[in-house]
Amino acid sequence: MTIAHEALEAHRRWNGKLDTTPKMDIRTRHDLAVAYTPGVAEPCKVIAENPDAAYEYTLKANTVAVVTDGSAVLGLGNIGPLAAMPVMEGKCDLFKTFANVNAFPICLDTQDTDEIVKACIQLAPTFGGINLEDISAPRCFEIEKRLNDALDIPVFHDDQHGTAIVVLSALINSLKLVGKDAASVRVVMSGAGAAGIAIAKLLLSYGFENIVMCGSRGIISSKLEGINEAQRAMLEVTNLDDKAGTLADAMVGADIFVGVSAPGVVTRAMVETMAENPIVFAMANPVPEIYPEDAIAAGAAVVGTGRSDFPNQVNNVIAFPGIFKGALEARAERITEPMKLAAAEALASLVSPEELSRDFVMPDPFDPRVADAVAEAVRMCARA
Amino acid sequence: MTIAHEALEAHRRWNGKLDTTPKMDIRTRHDLAVAYTPGVAEPCKVIAENPDAAYEYTLKANTVAVVTDGSAVLGLGNIGPLAAMPVMEGKCDLFKTFANVNAFPICLDTQDTDEIVKACIQLAPTFGGINLEDISAPRCFEIEKRLNDALDIPVFHDDQHGTAIVVLSALINSLKLVGKDAASVRVVMSGAGAAGIAIAKLLLSYGFENIVMCGSRGIISSKLEGINEAQRAMLEVTNLDDKAGTLADAMVGADIFVGVSAPGVVTRAMVETMAENPIVFAMANPVPEIYPEDAIAAGAAVVGTGRSDFPNQVNNVIAFPGIFKGALEARAERITEPMKLAAAEALASLVSPEELSRDFVMPDPFDPRVADAVAEAVRMCARA
Repeated sequence: MTIAHEALEAHRRWNGKLDTTPKMDIRTRHDLAVAYTPGVAEPCKVIAENPDAAYEYTLKANTVAVVTDGSAVLGLGNIGPLAAMPVMEGKCDLFKTFANVNAFPICLDTQDTDEIVKACIQLAPTFGGINLEDISAPRCFEIEKRLNDALDIPVFHDDQHGTAIVVLSALINSLKLVGKDAASVRVVMSGAGAAGIAIAKLLLSYGFENIVMCGSRGIISSKLEGINEAQRAMLEVTNLDDKAGTLADAMVGADIFVGVSAPGVVTRAMVETMAENPIVFAMANPVPEIYPEDAIAAGAAVVGTGRSDFPNQVNNVIAFPGIFKGALEARAERITEPMKLAAAEALASLVSPEELSRDFVMPDPFDPRVADAVAEAVRMCARA
Repeated sequence: MTIAHEALEAHRRWNGKLDTTPKMDIRTRHDLAVAYTPGVAEPCKVIAENPDAAYEYTLKANTVAVVTDGSAVLGLGNIGPLAAMPVMEGKCDLFKTFANVNAFPICLDTQDTDEIVKACIQLAPTFGGINLEDISAPRCFEIEKRLNDALDIPVFHDDQHGTAIVVLSALINSLKLVGKDAASVRVVMSGAGAAGIAIAKLLLSYGFENIVMCGSRGIISSKLEGINEAQRAMLEVTNLDDKAGTLADAMVGADIFVGVSAPGVVTRAMVETMAENPIVFAMANPVPEIYPEDAIAAGAAVVGTGRSDFPNQVNNVIAFPGIFKGALEARAERITEPMKLAAAEALASLVSPEELSRDFVMPDPFDPRVADAVAEAVRMCARA
C-alpha cells in the first residue's frame, strides 16, 4: 500500500485527527459545581479584574491557534480553508506530540488580508499564540506584521520562520564539517518567495554576508523586471554587487546552495561549478531541485532535502513546537530575531561533534531533547 | 471550604480546563508521513473535490464551537470575552463528558452584531455546529437568525433553546403529576428576555395556549410602554386578552409559574392566589424568585429551581450535549422546532411513571441514557 492510500484510509478511520479532552472528571453534582456553575464564576471574576490572570486560570496559557485561509497548502496551492483542515489538524497533533502544547485549527473562510487580520484579532482572547500556516505570499508578510503590531501574543508564520530556523541549524553544522565560516561563504538561493526571503533574512542575522537570491527567471537584481516589493527590499542586503544572470551563473563558485523552489532546476553540471566542498540543500517537495545522489556525484560535501527518505531532512517539526512552548512559558509577546537565532543554535548543538557527519547535521525529530532545547533557548532570550 | 474557594483553587491547578489530544500516536517517521506530510495531501485533495468529504476526513464531523462575546456571562453580566473563558471551557468539557462531542471555546473580542456574525461565518469551515453562549439580548436573536440563514451547520443559542427544552420537559411531567393538560392551563412567566421568550415560544409549539409574560415592570401588554421588538412580537401569541397589571395580578388563578427573572419577586401570598396544585419553576440564580420551602408552604404541587441543592434542578446539561450529538450525527443544517419538542419529550419520558414524583420530574444529568435519548430524538426528526 502506498503512503497516499494508507493516509487516506487512516484519515477516514480517524474521522478527525484531534479530540478536545476535559482535564478533569465530571462525575458528580459537586464536580459540576466546581468546574461549571456556580464555581466557575470565581475565576471569571478574577480575570475580569486582572486580564493577566487568564494565563493562570484558562487554556490561553498553553494553547496555539493554527490559522490558515487555505491559500497555499503544501504543494496543493489554493485549495481553500475546508480542504486545508487535514493539514491544520495534523499540525495541531504535532504541537501536542512534540511539545505538549495544545493547538486548535482555525480555517478561515476568507482570503482577504484585512478580514484575516481582523478575524485573528477577534480570536486572540482565546489563544496564547497564533501559528499562521499555508497563507500565500505576499499577503502572509502583511498579515504577520499587522498581527504582531496589534496583539500582545506571539504570531509566527511557520512556513517562513520555522523553515528558516531549521535551515540555519543545518548550515551551522554543515559549515563545521567543511571547515568554513558564515561570514566568508557565498550562498545562492533558489526561490524568492516567503520561505526563501525568511531564510535569507535569518542567515544575514546570523552572520552570513554574501547571499544571492534567484527566482524562476534568474538572479534577483535591480535589472530584473517584475520583482515584487519584498524582493526589491532584499536587494538592500543581498546581491550587493547587483549581478544579473541565471541560477547557473549564480552558482559558479558558490559555497552553499539553498533551494525552496522547483523540481530539477539544479543539474550535476551546476553543482560541479560550485566552490570546493559545496553544501546543497534542495528542499523542493516532493521532487527536490537536485536528487542527493546527483549532488554527491557532482562533489557536494553535505546534501539535505525536505524528504524523510533521504538523510538530512529539513523538517519544521524540530522547530515550531519548541518555539511556541518556550514563548508560551515565557509569556513572550513576539517571536524575535534573537529567539530564532538561539533556537537554530540550540538545534545545531544537539548534534554532538562525535555524531556530526555529512548524513547527520540536524537532530532527529523524535529526539526527545529537541522541543525542550528549543523552548529553553527561546525562554532565555525572552527573559534577557 | 466554600465552592467558590474550591473552584478558584481547582481552576488554578488545572490551568485551563481543556486539552487538545491527537487521536493517533506519532512515534516514527512513517507515522509522520501518514498523519502529516506527504500523506495528508490525499484527504485534502478529496475534500477540495467534494466539500462534503470534510465530514468523513476531519474533526468537523464531531466538533462544536462554543462562541461568546462575553456580554451576558452567567449572573456576572458583560465581563468581556477573556473573563468568559472559564465558562466556555467548562461548557466544552460538558459537551465531551456528557455526549462525547468535541467542543472548543471561541471568545470573540467584539460585541458588534455584524462583526460577530461575520466572524462565525469565517470560522464555520472548521466546525460542525455553533453553540452561541452568553450573548446579550436582543443581539442574540439577530445573530442566531442571521447565522442560521447564512450557514449550513446548526447554530443554537443554548441560553434560549436549551433552557426552553428542559423547562418544557419538566412541565410535561409536572402536568402528569397534577392531572392537567397543556392546552387548558394558564402559564405566567416572569422574565421576558431571551430565555423567557424562547420558553414561551416552545411551550406554544408544544400546545400550551394561554401564556402571560411579565417583565420587571409588570405584564407585557400593548399598554406597557417601552417594550422591545421581540416582546411586542410575542403579544401576537401570548396575553391574547391584552391584560395589564403586575406580576401578582397575572398570577391570580394561574396553573404554572415560570421564572427566569430576579431574586425574590414572588411571595408566598402570590403563590396562594394561584389555581389548585400550582406548578412553580423559579429559576433565577443563585437566589430564586421564591425559595422551594416557601412555594410548597403556599401550596405548590411541584417546585423547581436552577440550583443543584434543591430538587428538580433545571439544568441545560441534560439537553445541549445530546442536541448537538444528534444534529451532528444526522448532519442536520438547523436545530428545528420539532427537534426541540422531540428532545423535551425524550427527556420527559426518561422519568418512568414509577419514578415520577414532585421531587423528580426531570432525569438526572448523570443518567447515562440522557444524551443518547436526546440525540436519538433529534436524529429521528432530522431524518423525517
